[in-house]
Amino acid sequence: MIKQVLLGILCGTAMLVTGILIGHFAITQSSSSSSPSWVKEVAKDVDESLIEKFLSEVDNLQIQENLRVLTKVPHMATTAGDEETVKFMLKRWQDAETGLDQAWREEYMVYLSFPDPKNPNKVTVVSPSDTVLHSAREKEKPYYPDQEDTEVVQPYAAYSPAGHAKGKLVYANQGKPSDYQLLNQTVDLRGTIAITRYGGAGRAAKAINAAPYGVLGVLVYTDPLDINDGLMSDINETYPHSWYLPPSGVERGSFNSHFGDLLTPYLAAKDETYRIPVENITGNPPIPIQPIGFEDAYALICQLAGEAAPAAWQGAFNCTYNFGGPGFKHTSLFNNSDVKIDVFNHEQVKNSSNVMGVIRGSVEPDRYVIYGNHRDSWVHGAIDPSSGTSVMLELSRVLGAMVKQGKWRPRRSIIFGSWGAEEFGLIGSAEYTEQYFTKLSERTVAYINVDIAVFANATLRASGMPSVQNVLFTAAKQVSAPGMDSMSVYDNWIRYSNRTSPAHGPIPRVGYLSGAGSDYAAFVHYLGITSMDLSYTYDRSKTNARIYPAYHTAYDTFDYASKFIDPGFVSHQAIARTAGNVLIRLADSLVLPLNCSDYAESLEDYLNTALTLYEHQLKAKNISMEPLKLAVANFRRAAAHLDHVIHGSDLANEIPLKARRINDQLMLLDRAFLDPLAFPNKYAYR
Amino acid sequence: MIKQVLLGILCGTAMLVTGILIGHFAITQSSSSSSPSWVKEVAKDVDESLIEKFLSEVDNLQIQENLRVLTKVPHMATTAGDEETVKFMLKRWQDAETGLDQAWREEYMVYLSFPDPKNPNKVTVVSPSDTVLHSAREKEKPYYPDQEDTEVVQPYAAYSPAGHAKGKLVYANQGKPSDYQLLNQTVDLRGTIAITRYGGAGRAAKAINAAPYGVLGVLVYTDPLDINDGLMSDINETYPHSWYLPPSGVERGSFNSHFGDLLTPYLAAKDETYRIPVENITGNPPIPIQPIGFEDAYALICQLAGEAAPAAWQGAFNCTYNFGGPGFKHTSLFNNSDVKIDVFNHEQVKNSSNVMGVIRGSVEPDRYVIYGNHRDSWVHGAIDPSSGTSVMLELSRVLGAMVKQGKWRPRRSIIFGSWGAEEFGLIGSAEYTEQYFTKLSERTVAYINVDIAVFANATLRASGMPSVQNVLFTAAKQVSAPGMDSMSVYDNWIRYSNRTSPAHGPIPRVGYLSGAGSDYAAFVHYLGITSMDLSYTYDRSKTNARIYPAYHTAYDTFDYASKFIDPGFVSHQAIARTAGNVLIRLADSLVLPLNCSDYAESLEDYLNTALTLYEHQLKAKNISMEPLKLAVANFRRAAAHLDHVIHGSDLANEIPLKARRINDQLMLLDRAFLDPLAFPNKYAYR
Repeated sequence: MIKQVLLGILCGTAMLVTGILIGHFAITQSSSSSSPSWVKEVAKDVDESLIEKFLSEVDNLQIQENLRVLTKVPHMATTAGDEETVKFMLKRWQDAETGLDQAWREEYMVYLSFPDPKNPNKVTVVSPSDTVLHSAREKEKPYYPDQEDTEVVQPYAAYSPAGHAKGKLVYANQGKPSDYQLLNQTVDLRGTIAITRYGGAGRAAKAINAAPYGVLGVLVYTDPLDINDGLMSDINETYPHSWYLPPSGVERGSFNSHFGDLLTPYLAAKDETYRIPVENITGNPPIPIQPIGFEDAYALICQLAGEAAPAAWQGAFNCTYNFGGPGFKHTSLFNNSDVKIDVFNHEQVKNSSNVMGVIRGSVEPDRYVIYGNHRDSWVHGAIDPSSGTSVMLELSRVLGAMVKQGKWRPRRSIIFGSWGAEEFGLIGSAEYTEQYFTKLSERTVAYINVDIAVFANATLRASGMPSVQNVLFTAAKQVSAPGMDSMSVYDNWIRYSNRTSPAHGPIPRVGYLSGAGSDYAAFVHYLGITSMDLSYTYDRSKTNARIYPAYHTAYDTFDYASKFIDPGFVSHQAIARTAGNVLIRLADSLVLPLNCSDYAESLEDYLNTALTLYEHQLKAKNISMEPLKLAVANFRRAAAHLDHVIHGSDLANEIPLKARRINDQLMLLDRAFLDPLAFPNKYAYR
Repeated sequence: MIKQVLLGILCGTAMLVTGILIGHFAITQSSSSSSPSWVKEVAKDVDESLIEKFLSEVDNLQIQENLRVLTKVPHMATTAGDEETVKFMLKRWQDAETGLDQAWREEYMVYLSFPDPKNPNKVTVVSPSDTVLHSAREKEKPYYPDQEDTEVVQPYAAYSPAGHAKGKLVYANQGKPSDYQLLNQTVDLRGTIAITRYGGAGRAAKAINAAPYGVLGVLVYTDPLDINDGLMSDINETYPHSWYLPPSGVERGSFNSHFGDLLTPYLAAKDETYRIPVENITGNPPIPIQPIGFEDAYALICQLAGEAAPAAWQGAFNCTYNFGGPGFKHTSLFNNSDVKIDVFNHEQVKNSSNVMGVIRGSVEPDRYVIYGNHRDSWVHGAIDPSSGTSVMLELSRVLGAMVKQGKWRPRRSIIFGSWGAEEFGLIGSAEYTEQYFTKLSERTVAYINVDIAVFANATLRASGMPSVQNVLFTAAKQVSAPGMDSMSVYDNWIRYSNRTSPAHGPIPRVGYLSGAGSDYAAFVHYLGITSMDLSYTYDRSKTNARIYPAYHTAYDTFDYASKFIDPGFVSHQAIARTAGNVLIRLADSLVLPLNCSDYAESLEDYLNTALTLYEHQLKAKNISMEPLKLAVANFRRAAAHLDHVIHGSDLANEIPLKARRINDQLMLLDRAFLDPLAFPNKYAYR
């Protein structure tokens, strides 16, 4: 009986336990108390294993193949070659297995400037009897079939007015205001032609600064001192023997001072858009200007008469750089001759395309991380911009495949932009920001720009708003430096460029995006969007080159890139991994990886510089810097408070609108520094 | 045995069932699958019973008592009376039982203009021998002690330059450009003084339009035709016998054309703010201008010589309004006399306060619904602005009590603003929008303005962006019309002002906020925030008054308001209920009650008007309106799509970021119409 009772109790207990288990685990809770399916989804954060997978799949050989296709033919904006790259990008981003959710082209009608292939621009030395004593090369010297492609555009200064200028030559150093001022103290500049070297002043500025002195035309060239570490010979020194610029190489460029389409400031350049009269365009050179190679510059400068220019004006030629008589030495063959510039440029409104691609966010589709680069080049543009485009295509391939395979969808939307007509003044990206002004202002978390991905293979270079420093470091620590399995991009970077942060100690130095050197400009200056610009760059102990020597020349080819810039494409791979890692973190983090205390540190740094430079002088004029000090201190306090809130929260488990609120504060931080009417006459600078 | 087995099975089954029940109901689910506590909170929506409670608690007698306190003494901006109202607002909003979460004052140093109490402005008729033949009243005639308060400011034109002007008088109708042009065809205006009546042109414009003709000074008065339905006698017709303006009543006002502090455009007028030089201020009258009562205007105008002015220029005086010889009739005592204006105004930078109060939102504290009105008056300002302030205090009392009692907390934050120095040019609200530009742009859902709450007691008047129509209607349908228990504010409204909507059929007409008549201006034109302005107003079949007759005079007192504008304060109550209902709905709705399809309807209406007026002419100039038609059609399609998404969603049960995304689209709708650089020279119009 006891056995039976015990057995009964045992069975009963077993039934009870079974029942409890069934009741607890096997029966779904009624909807009123069970957790909605989206509760987990909304707490989605960065998945480190996914980042590892991404890093392992970024392939250097894929980047190399991307570059080979992109650089097959010259693809200057709006040419047939450009259209080929549009189709290539679309094909890749619409690929069923590795493409994005959506990709399309966005077209604008933009105001461009071209030379006339049938009537090339000319630079000649003309004797008093009108004999042509010297003609500058009209095209760069071919070393490979690439340079012989009929689509290689003649070197020219886009937006230089057409016209003919003739006069005695003078040497005006870099064409800065101070250069013309100094020169004018010795030489009467009225009626002269000035030859200047690249650097020190913007392209257009070299002509704009000259015109008030009565200069009629300007030449510009790249001095071997500034680009070739002094080397000049293509027999054994320059390309095709090294990365250095051959004597006939000429840097092309846009010679307008502004960015965006010149006829439609503040408006997207659509068919129906109002266009200002051409005569209202500002920022163009008022007099003809034409770039030439240093081979021709040498022939001119070394014959100049007049006083010797100051030491700071001397370049690498084996002669003294004189001011000019004005004009040439008596002893020169060019004695008494003029220099003549004939520019036949014409302006044209042409159809330029951005190619856009999107991966739609799962949780916050109305928050955008934008990644972009321009697509147009001056000639083949292997480095500028196709190195960046090759990197963008590789990282979008890896991400696209993960999406298509159903393995991943970012928390926020990712937008890829392949901008058109950047070389004429950042036009595609500027028109995009004008067209989607409100939406982008309200929704964009960050913009990542990778234009020239690899200038050289020594170290990472990064510029950006102060808040991006931390995510850059996190990403760079997870990527191996090119060719160095045991050292990270971060550890390598800090060896080349560093500073000591009051908060973090010694760290790599992140530059500030103050200029308008690439497509980040409209995002930074017009929209106030947190932005960054990444590349691999030089070991400054090994070269003083202003920029990689083939920049904007016919030598910037696949051959040049793969032989001299990044053999094996491992630096490209490191950039793709670093930029892609940053992109994933910005898109996937529950809390945006933007740090406002680092912003405070930068503001304090700027403040201290300003105090050192100006406080004494301002005090003398009875202007106090105390309010500025107070503002920076208030910013620091608010930043510390926000950090405190973030660290004191368990945002994955709290009401989802709390994370959103914090993220909106972080997202909009840079927007707070905009002043829409700060510079009513300075295009897009707010 | 069978029994035992059956018993065993029975017991076992019972134990199993017990176990299942325990397991299912008695054991809390582990946190991974149970619903977080915020899931309900995040779905919070409008509670109709709470709105009923609010409506029932809004008390007309409380509003009356608020008004009595607010109007005890004159409270012109920055005076001692103004400071008393600051303290009163603070005390009420900081009340432990009926106050808000937080209240504080926000101070600005603003540029104001005042007459000199020791040296009052004068308007005289002076004979050729310098005898004063007539002096205009310096103060309005007292009927009650209110008018005898030493703090009643002399009638003046704020921002009129100080100065002395003397010349022959002319009558220039409303001082519009066309008025001076017509007058100048008959009379040489050089060296004259012009007398003008209020209406038709802005205050400053009457002087600005005059100066180019050589007019030296301007008088302005209110014609009984425009304000009194022709009545003139204070013996039995005007106040204190009715709401009409007594003969000595003078409308004061700001005579600058812009809004916001004049020395700190685009910046908040803090101590340390950069101030432009006074001589760079634009929009002020270039010549002295002074307002007078119609009693004095009558004495002048009826003596004028010259041709009879056109019929449209004639007012209610029992004489012909002549142009002026220039000057007076030969038969007049004033024959050959001049009119002299002596203005002793002085400008002063003074400390003006906004009083701010906040109820913090529970779910979306970073979304703001702002409700505001100015606090400063010209004299006692019972109607303008204290009717609105009394209403604001009553609705904040009812809401504050619900918060303090723990019965309610809005989903979004509510901000109350009691603006300072509105009468001098919307200064307090404009400085507020300048100070918190970024935050307000990014976070404000809507702005509700109730300035003059009750002009008259006939019907609701509402103006606003097209998207607010629906929430206004919902609220107005739930409130009884004053004194009419069986009719709603809505049903009463539609009788007075209506239109037929293609989508909704016959509905009340909501006006558009295109002007700058009250503090909504900075929110609308500078920030692009969805705004509305509410009041109770006239039966236009009963009066043609430009505005309520005591406007900006010493007769706008508690006595006037309670006897002639709203006896029993039931119209005040109806406005408090309607505006409060709108406020709660904007603050509490899960989906913002803003309708973008109604916006599309308005755009289509504007488009059709534009097509009718301009399409033909533009076509003749080869300008197409097709892109505009396309843009409006695109807007309509996008609006329909958004409506479709909203109606097809179960937002209370879906991922909370979906409702937020939709709400952000609705919130930012008006911001999409801003063009920050549209009018670089037109202050704050974007």
